[in-house]
Amino acid sequence: MTDSRETADTTETTRTDSSSPADQFTVTPYAVDGEIDYEKLLERFGANRLTDEQIERFPDHPLLRRRTFYAGRDVDKYLEAAAAGDPHAIVTGRGPSGPMHLGHVLPLYLAKRFQWKTGATVYIPLSDDEKFLAKDQSFDAIGEHTRENLHDILAVGFDPDRTRIVIDTADADVVYPIAVRLAKHLTPATVEAVYGEQDTVGLQFYPAVQATHLLLPQLVAGRQPTLVPIAIDQDPHVRICRDVAAKEALPVEKPGALLGRFLPSLDGPGKMSSSGDAPSIELTADPETVAETIRTHAYTGGRATIEEHRKKGGDPTVDVPFQYLRYFFESDDAELERIAADYRSGDLLSGELKELAIERITEFLDEHQRRRAELGSLEAELDPFRLTDGEQRRALERAGVPTGLDR
Amino acid sequence: MTDSRETADTTETTRTDSSSPADQFTVTPYAVDGEIDYEKLLERFGANRLTDEQIERFPDHPLLRRRTFYAGRDVDKYLEAAAAGDPHAIVTGRGPSGPMHLGHVLPLYLAKRFQWKTGATVYIPLSDDEKFLAKDQSFDAIGEHTRENLHDILAVGFDPDRTRIVIDTADADVVYPIAVRLAKHLTPATVEAVYGEQDTVGLQFYPAVQATHLLLPQLVAGRQPTLVPIAIDQDPHVRICRDVAAKEALPVEKPGALLGRFLPSLDGPGKMSSSGDAPSIELTADPETVAETIRTHAYTGGRATIEEHRKKGGDPTVDVPFQYLRYFFESDDAELERIAADYRSGDLLSGELKELAIERITEFLDEHQRRRAELGSLEAELDPFRLTDGEQRRALERAGVPTGLDR
Repeated sequence: MTDSRETADTTETTRTDSSSPADQFTVTPYAVDGEIDYEKLLERFGANRLTDEQIERFPDHPLLRRRTFYAGRDVDKYLEAAAAGDPHAIVTGRGPSGPMHLGHVLPLYLAKRFQWKTGATVYIPLSDDEKFLAKDQSFDAIGEHTRENLHDILAVGFDPDRTRIVIDTADADVVYPIAVRLAKHLTPATVEAVYGEQDTVGLQFYPAVQATHLLLPQLVAGRQPTLVPIAIDQDPHVRICRDVAAKEALPVEKPGALLGRFLPSLDGPGKMSSSGDAPSIELTADPETVAETIRTHAYTGGRATIEEHRKKGGDPTVDVPFQYLRYFFESDDAELERIAADYRSGDLLSGELKELAIERITEFLDEHQRRRAELGSLEAELDPFRLTDGEQRRALERAGVPTGLDR
Repeated sequence: MTDSRETADTTETTRTDSSSPADQFTVTPYAVDGEIDYEKLLERFGANRLTDEQIERFPDHPLLRRRTFYAGRDVDKYLEAAAAGDPHAIVTGRGPSGPMHLGHVLPLYLAKRFQWKTGATVYIPLSDDEKFLAKDQSFDAIGEHTRENLHDILAVGFDPDRTRIVIDTADADVVYPIAVRLAKHLTPATVEAVYGEQDTVGLQFYPAVQATHLLLPQLVAGRQPTLVPIAIDQDPHVRICRDVAAKEALPVEKPGALLGRFLPSLDGPGKMSSSGDAPSIELTADPETVAETIRTHAYTGGRATIEEHRKKGGDPTVDVPFQYLRYFFESDDAELERIAADYRSGDLLSGELKELAIERITEFLDEHQRRRAELGSLEAELDPFRLTDGEQRRALERAGVPTGLDR
């Protein structure tokens, strides 16, 4: 129980063994309820657990090393291209329905690591259309979130030569025609089988837009392995895209996936979400707010009293501050093990563990916020990350969509 | 029976009185089957028959005077604005799934007349997305039809200061975001109730795109009465648009409609269509082809033999060459009456009536083709008819869609 990787797996196994039969949890892109059985999800979705050997071939990162991303599809193709220096791409999006918080930005930092280590092209689609359709918010509100989120995405520090940021409404001239191409054989029955019944024709159409996102790197720059790092509840998007890409005989590989567990919300297991009641740490939070939020709301694995904690020790596997360190903020395995051991022994109190997490998260946010504050006007900063006219034209041509009227 | 207007109405009444109960004909935007009972359609769709007084207030045109367009919605508002010199708009679109023929271009010439007489703004949306989704054709083929159709539309001779041509894929940057706005409360059940079950999520979404077309004049230039001259089978599009415009509280009037009968196909009553088996007269047809097509294929109201025809006379109400003259190509009522009388009396033979129609249609096509041949490059000719950046921005702003990232 000292190895953090085993700790994580054991945690999940314990949850599985208790009382969560398959029919007591729901996972679709719009609903995550109940205790999550990550093994059952793999079976249900037909994805593959990452092997140790695959993990080692990825750029080293706690999110992979510690199996937060624990499964995938067509991972080997991606790894082979990355090793050979051949083109390879990552697509990791954002639904701009509110401020971004910690959980939202971690996959972006993972993508940046991949970009730095192996030269991956990174595509970041912002689905403002879907969020407008799915949420009780005006387009103005979604637009404001989009602009704020863009600041956070730009603050991550991607290489503009290898990164494209795509906004569904602002890039509709390329996104919509390709989505129509993909929608030609996407039936209402398929969408309903994968997503459940949708309330509006906008949401029924949206899977074609998301499939477009996942194919864009290849449509712009030609066939290449594409990996989509997502929480496993988003896997249906990838499967629909794989189906339509094959059905339409487009000049692309089926996109692969890197499937992750949900990051815990501050008040306990589940998915960190701005839409639920759980508090969350926004990327723009100041240090006092971060400290206050974690001190007040973080669910711990500590005992009821200090005396009991000193005697029996805490449980890092359910302790949210510890999990934050494990997922992302403490990259040193030995240090993480020391913290876990101290917590289990009772030497480290819950309050002290919280302060460790506060310190690391604050350091991270301080850097992020510094880069965010250094950004110039959004339009100027975004410009080098947008699809060029030539890229748009090539994408439409590869998608078999007519061009030439005004391009 | 000498007044052509009465003749037309009598024709329809006769058909109605025979054997076409309401459940034996189908009219949706994708299916027109069986004998059409135009009175029952009005009841079913809840539209109003045009009054004589309304007809007189429209610019004079055979299509109205002779009740090919025979019904409408919110027609008075349009007529009042036209009379007062206030802004008023016509939207008349084209689905580019093949070459345009006579039946397709007549509403465009009607719109041009309105534009010349009262200064109507004319919007001409081309639904290449819908045609790609609905037809077994590649996007390349649809794109080629789009370019050919654009030549025909430009040849009509609209005023570029008062006319906008919108192509769904090429103008997706404005069309798609607005369609998303309208799709937010457009349910699959509503679409299915109006259009029937759709095979793909693309076609399910399309009504939101068509609603966008009908609102564009107002979204670009502010509230104004908008009239949509369409065959009555397209009325569901208008009704969906009216519903969503009201539901979304957009700053627009509900668009009105001018509802028409189907032009007959050459081989008899029904809808002139390039998709069925009936031959049709393409706008690019040369005089020999026009003559040969009408001589060979046109359904006539003549008798089996010349002797019988001379004795009993022909029936102009079912004679397709006569109907062509009545709908559009013989604008002089007295001349049309003379032709009808001569045909009924047996003085005019079917072959002779065909030659009259050939002559008029050839004259019309000659003018049209002359203007078409004088066009320069499509891009240059189309340019003054496209939405300007300012118009796009205003449309998105009025639709409550965020702008400002790159506009």
